[in-house]
Amino acid sequence: MADLWQEAMDHAVALAKKAGEIVRDALQNEMKIMCKSSSVDLVTKTDQKVEQLIIDSVKEKFPNHGFIGEESVAAGQPCLLTDDPTWIVDPVDGTTNFVHGYPFVAVCIGFAVNKMLEFGVVYSCIEDKMYTARRGKGAFCNGDPLQVSDQKEINQSIIATEFGSSRDPEVVDKIFSNMRKILCLPVHGIRGSGSAAVNMCLVAAGCVEAYYEVGIHCWDVAAAAVIVAEAGGVLVDLEEPEPMMMPWRLASASWRGSRPQSLRSSSSWVSSGPPLPGCSTEYQGATAAGGDVGEGDGVGGPAGLRPGLAPPIKPTLSLRI
Amino acid sequence: MADLWQEAMDHAVALAKKAGEIVRDALQNEMKIMCKSSSVDLVTKTDQKVEQLIIDSVKEKFPNHGFIGEESVAAGQPCLLTDDPTWIVDPVDGTTNFVHGYPFVAVCIGFAVNKMLEFGVVYSCIEDKMYTARRGKGAFCNGDPLQVSDQKEINQSIIATEFGSSRDPEVVDKIFSNMRKILCLPVHGIRGSGSAAVNMCLVAAGCVEAYYEVGIHCWDVAAAAVIVAEAGGVLVDLEEPEPMMMPWRLASASWRGSRPQSLRSSSSWVSSGPPLPGCSTEYQGATAAGGDVGEGDGVGGPAGLRPGLAPPIKPTLSLRI
Repeated sequence: MADLWQEAMDHAVALAKKAGEIVRDALQNEMKIMCKSSSVDLVTKTDQKVEQLIIDSVKEKFPNHGFIGEESVAAGQPCLLTDDPTWIVDPVDGTTNFVHGYPFVAVCIGFAVNKMLEFGVVYSCIEDKMYTARRGKGAFCNGDPLQVSDQKEINQSIIATEFGSSRDPEVVDKIFSNMRKILCLPVHGIRGSGSAAVNMCLVAAGCVEAYYEVGIHCWDVAAAAVIVAEAGGVLVDLEEPEPMMMPWRLASASWRGSRPQSLRSSSSWVSSGPPLPGCSTEYQGATAAGGDVGEGDGVGGPAGLRPGLAPPIKPTLSLRI
Repeated sequence: MADLWQEAMDHAVALAKKAGEIVRDALQNEMKIMCKSSSVDLVTKTDQKVEQLIIDSVKEKFPNHGFIGEESVAAGQPCLLTDDPTWIVDPVDGTTNFVHGYPFVAVCIGFAVNKMLEFGVVYSCIEDKMYTARRGKGAFCNGDPLQVSDQKEINQSIIATEFGSSRDPEVVDKIFSNMRKILCLPVHGIRGSGSAAVNMCLVAAGCVEAYYEVGIHCWDVAAAAVIVAEAGGVLVDLEEPEPMMMPWRLASASWRGSRPQSLRSSSSWVSSGPPLPGCSTEYQGATAAGGDVGEGDGVGGPAGLRPGLAPPIKPTLSLRI
């Protein structure tokens, strides 16, 4: 059967490459930086220019397709997901990195039909790494197949997360409290690239075992979600047992083995569903339940987008943070 | 005048490349991981193999030179700096990253004569970035010149630091307390690559404005110190006003402009010396003074190694963390 959406995916890869060139060129020049929700929540002219490039190109080539983009929503456009083919775009994920030339800046293009993600393209353009995944066809980085880590023990894992852009003392307290609990499980380490999409691609590549963040947006994760799922990982909303693609609270994890022995008797882990079909696993995700997760500062995203996997994966054991 | 030590530097670059190949090859294979001070303080056979390669090669080519290496000291060799030409080596900086394939792993070779650093070579071998600096001749990455950031305001800066390998609750509390204070200055963000040398090279490259860490070793910083200094940055011990190359507590910073206006009245900043000669600066470094810095778990290093700059740079304003 012909792949209906391959043409759209090929176009997304070409657009991401072109957008990456604009980002790299901008790094060589003075850039105009503006603030959004706070003095540390940044946006640049490049974010807006890249999003407009992608919108214009998609409208010309696929006039019936819908569009959800970070900068369009910030400018007042609705964040509305219908059953129509819809492009979900973060033109520059990791804007603070971009402003400083820190080497993790990603152009993110996800694509959903009937609220199911069909493909994801994440171009980490300073590193020149093109991550791609088509539903059911695997995940790749510059053409090489990706596979999540096979590490089964959380205390042998690296966890990715971020400090976020809120400096509200209450939010910061919660973020640090969560990080401290994770660090002292103990884990091998905590890392943060400064880009949600790159963090998720590092899960897909097996370099980190899990990534969690509260206050995430659909455009931050839609593209990378397909890449994680196709690399064998799982994604869960941090408060809902059902995995989602439009989470406000997200964890993507690679654990597919048995529940860590070291945590079997810990009250910080709860079972929340049956195992992944085809896997003899007990633990497949990390989720924050309870009242001490931080609150972000963004707009979330439309609910109901499915992860593009059939049958849906359910996490079977959760980590309260 | 002929450069006495250029031959040694050329040899160091060649050795770093060879070592990087070993590291990259090892990433493709199963690796044997051992623990040092704790279950999260790791060492691998590759660390030891790379250090032995460098020792053997240096001994053959420069039989009168001394050697200080992380794994040799761990195995009981003295950490002794004399006036002799001395190679200061961390074979794999970022061992936890290496174990997980996280993309910041560096081979570090510093070289001192009369306790003054003459050159530094840091090869970030997964990224394939060769950072080099010869005293008085500038710093480079893959041949391109490096220059620290010209950002003058700390609240427009990215700060690099690490969570470290101690999971002692008291140490962890101090690390988190320091990070929280930095984050809420506010700064644009906090990043950590998982490698001290790479963090310092990111300061040299202008991607982050400062890096600080408590519990650092001479082999972690000797090579990168020359790179930061030659890129126009400064390095200070966190408790001593005199800059040092063998700090237990280190901050490397790129601020060379005026003291941040936003912090002029803050008690968390103290003046600690005259400005850098040739610069109309008040602030040139970040230093932790007071009792709430964490204690590391390593062995430090021999005191008295000089930064290889004449006249020595003194920080003029300090950040208490």
